[in-house]
Amino acid sequence: MDVIGEDSYILVYRDRRRRWLIRPRDTPKLHTHLGILDVSALVGKEYGVTATTTLGDELVVLKPTIEDMVMKLARRTQVIYPKDLGLIMVKLGVHAGSRVVETGTGSGATTALLAYLVQPTGMVYTYDLNPEFQEVAKKNIEKLGLSQFVTFRVGDSRLGFEESEMDAGVLDVGDPWEVIGRMRVSLKPSAPMAAITPTTNQAEKLVAKMKEEGFVGLETVELLLRHLEARVGMTRPSNFMVGHTAYLTFGRRTSAPSQQS
Amino acid sequence: MDVIGEDSYILVYRDRRRRWLIRPRDTPKLHTHLGILDVSALVGKEYGVTATTTLGDELVVLKPTIEDMVMKLARRTQVIYPKDLGLIMVKLGVHAGSRVVETGTGSGATTALLAYLVQPTGMVYTYDLNPEFQEVAKKNIEKLGLSQFVTFRVGDSRLGFEESEMDAGVLDVGDPWEVIGRMRVSLKPSAPMAAITPTTNQAEKLVAKMKEEGFVGLETVELLLRHLEARVGMTRPSNFMVGHTAYLTFGRRTSAPSQQS
Amino acid sequence: MDVIGEDSYILVYRDRRRRWLIRPRDTPKLHTHLGILDVSALVGKEYGVTATTTLGDELVVLKPTIEDMVMKLARRTQVIYPKDLGLIMVKLGVHAGSRVVETGTGSGATTALLAYLVQPTGMVYTYDLNPEFQEVAKKNIEKLGLSQFVTFRVGDSRLGFEESEMDAGVLDVGDPWEVIGRMRVSLKPSAPMAAITPTTNQAEKLVAKMKEEGFVGLETVELLLRHLEARVGMTRPSNFMVGHTAYLTFGRRTSAPSQQS
Amino acid sequence: MDVIGEDSYILVYRDRRRRWLIRPRDTPKLHTHLGILDVSALVGKEYGVTATTTLGDELVVLKPTIEDMVMKLARRTQVIYPKDLGLIMVKLGVHAGSRVVETGTGSGATTALLAYLVQPTGMVYTYDLNPEFQEVAKKNIEKLGLSQFVTFRVGDSRLGFEESEMDAGVLDVGDPWEVIGRMRVSLKPSAPMAAITPTTNQAEKLVAKMKEEGFVGLETVELLLRHLEARVGMTRPSNFMVGHTAYLTFGRRTSAPSQQS
Repeated sequence: MDVIGEDSYILVYRDRRRRWLIRPRDTPKLHTHLGILDVSALVGKEYGVTATTTLGDELVVLKPTIEDMVMKLARRTQVIYPKDLGLIMVKLGVHAGSRVVETGTGSGATTALLAYLVQPTGMVYTYDLNPEFQEVAKKNIEKLGLSQFVTFRVGDSRLGFEESEMDAGVLDVGDPWEVIGRMRVSLKPSAPMAAITPTTNQAEKLVAKMKEEGFVGLETVELLLRHLEARVGMTRPSNFMVGHTAYLTFGRRTSAPSQQS
Repeated sequence: MDVIGEDSYILVYRDRRRRWLIRPRDTPKLHTHLGILDVSALVGKEYGVTATTTLGDELVVLKPTIEDMVMKLARRTQVIYPKDLGLIMVKLGVHAGSRVVETGTGSGATTALLAYLVQPTGMVYTYDLNPEFQEVAKKNIEKLGLSQFVTFRVGDSRLGFEESEMDAGVLDVGDPWEVIGRMRVSLKPSAPMAAITPTTNQAEKLVAKMKEEGFVGLETVELLLRHLEARVGMTRPSNFMVGHTAYLTFGRRTSAPSQQS
Repeated sequence: MDVIGEDSYILVYRDRRRRWLIRPRDTPKLHTHLGILDVSALVGKEYGVTATTTLGDELVVLKPTIEDMVMKLARRTQVIYPKDLGLIMVKLGVHAGSRVVETGTGSGATTALLAYLVQPTGMVYTYDLNPEFQEVAKKNIEKLGLSQFVTFRVGDSRLGFEESEMDAGVLDVGDPWEVIGRMRVSLKPSAPMAAITPTTNQAEKLVAKMKEEGFVGLETVELLLRHLEARVGMTRPSNFMVGHTAYLTFGRRTSAPSQQS
Repeated sequence: MDVIGEDSYILVYRDRRRRWLIRPRDTPKLHTHLGILDVSALVGKEYGVTATTTLGDELVVLKPTIEDMVMKLARRTQVIYPKDLGLIMVKLGVHAGSRVVETGTGSGATTALLAYLVQPTGMVYTYDLNPEFQEVAKKNIEKLGLSQFVTFRVGDSRLGFEESEMDAGVLDVGDPWEVIGRMRVSLKPSAPMAAITPTTNQAEKLVAKMKEEGFVGLETVELLLRHLEARVGMTRPSNFMVGHTAYLTFGRRTSAPSQQS
């Protein structure tokens, strides 16, 4: 049985738009327009319970999933979506024990999901040029209790990665074609990698460079997610839809030498 | 360094359509229209190498990813896509140690990915009405070396699951509304679940039933994957596209009692 | 040369979001946050000119297209999109001389486009239960100068249409399956028709009924429109996208008798 | 009442994939795997009737719509879709009396729809570099009985158009940025135009050039059409879907001089 602690994250849930991700220690009373919720009183209870606000409104207290946590982090600086992360994780085969190299760290959202999946025996090596960004990401990863599965490195990945024989790589920088050659060297032969780029021009330049670097199995895709409003007798897709997040480019390193040198 | 063994699966790769997933012991010589490849000669070599056929054609020898393996299995009986599996895995938070209940087993494709992610300490409990299907799935899981992370159960999940306190659930049956009440009981309060249904009518009936059973955080989505042909100066989306795979319905169990009983 | 008159509609255009559809007689001075535009002074000038506001901002004065006019009407009561209207017009072959039956009139947006296309020798017969709606639509059609190509009828189209031998039909009501039998009788054998329905359930019921009524060439489609932000070196699809407008169902009447009677 | 003549086109229809567009004079007997149809015997009958083959199979005899005719033409050389044509027609406001300039003619599919819509008083001026292409298009337009609404011109539209004060323009060439300046001169100020380009790179270059040429209201869009299989209790989108046809770029000419000269 999972019991709520003083330092546990809880997701107080009313509906898709009204949800709060908090900790009892930080937020003993949650003030909402639906009334005040006595969060302290939830300590010792089981996740999944319903709690009542001072205005009589019922809220459900959920245990946050890794998606809840990651999306919370992501919202602060950049946009990364579960649909994209999910496909990346499956294509890269990230799981317990994987050793993954990532650049850049950004808010640490992707890093967090990678760390969650590689535990308890793997490691994520994540690079960012910006030391301040990494500090934010580091704190985020700490909150999730995943710090021991992440090695943070401040530095310019265009100059290379310290690691080699990596199982997988994730590229989330503005000029991935400048980094892919270095990433090649850090990956095991045959290892898969993924790059996240918003524009068609970036995908175009990256794919050309990946061919030069001997990558195979190249594909660039985009995912469109649409909600279906499933209601008896009046089912229809939602009006609102996100039109674009990013192009995802995948490839596999080979033993072939770079045609660059 | 990963070295190819007699019993290792290898992915012989030419391009997206010409790829062979084989083992040296089973297929010492690979006969293709590009010539014959001496597969036996690859034993002891590193993944990622290039090998030449008798007709002089160059093929890359890759280590199959879990996606390669799962898609190979999926092709036989049903259609399940990495894009859908990826989103399910992220939303369910499946990772090392997770205990997941699934019905039905089908070809074992979803089961295989779940098992891959829950290792080395988790378990997938998978139900199917059809003992012959489960035999096929069992063999597939064995080939992947994931048998110790899967408990197969032949039986009608409409009558209930043996397990309780599950971390997550996956519903892939034709009448998920008949099973969701039983799945509720087997899940931990607050645990997430996912259902895969091809039609809008199924999603509609399922969502109505999930509301009765006190699930929250309900959402039904579909993912459209489109390839981008990223080529210098002539980048465009691919003509070919899969128009539909399945609707994915997600929800979270609460402690609220079923309104059914 | 097209010259702006006192009663001409003009589209004052700054960008996609800042545009005003006005007439000099109604709006001699246009007050905007970009300054005041002396609209009277535009009378006698040619469309396409640039005019300067009191704050020095430059606005282009365009001649509204039928799309501009129709979208202006549509915004008031319901949502109908050029993408959907365009496909309907092509599939129905609406052109000069066509005789088209439509129900319901709604805001008159679809009616207006139909009338625009059937002029100078065709006619649109449009039905609506609600006399007040039709008054609004009538005024809208008058503003467009298309009144002589539209016959308005207040009445319940479930009870039948006065017209027969129609070249095409458009169904835009909540319960099209109640009307399709009557529409069949009003259409020429072989004539095409289109129905606009937001939900999958409506499309499902309608298609079943159309089969009973001997329609052939049945197809239900939806159109997703996505903007591409085409900018040198940084081209990408827009973030914002409308996820759903309506399902469009098309069919052709045959001489086969209804299986209903 | 529409009666079938010796020279009338008829669409013999079984289902979406089995349909034949023929004329009694050309094809007195239609041989199909469903049996032979006595087409001569249909002369004098009304469209919409059902006819029986020698094998007892029932086929419906429809009057082809302009869409049926255009799609028949389109199949020969290039791909143009009703969804795209429909949006273009609405955005350009093509109707009886419109004077439209088009380049290139291609198979004449777009030309045919334009001609169909501008009749009985408008004119389509269509340019193509290739005289042989234009011969094919000319014959196609003749078959449709629309020749008097089309002026064919063999020539390089990069060197300019003979016409001026055009109501609308359609650009369907590989290098539209080379032509747009000339098209600007041939359009009325304020007139709308549309360009059809398969790649993102083309759209990017075109839009940049259109800005230089003083066009406003610029937008580039793509339309995705998805079929819904609407069947009682088992409604779902179709598996098959066309992933991409073309990007459509729209703009409006202004009186502003080109920034080129």
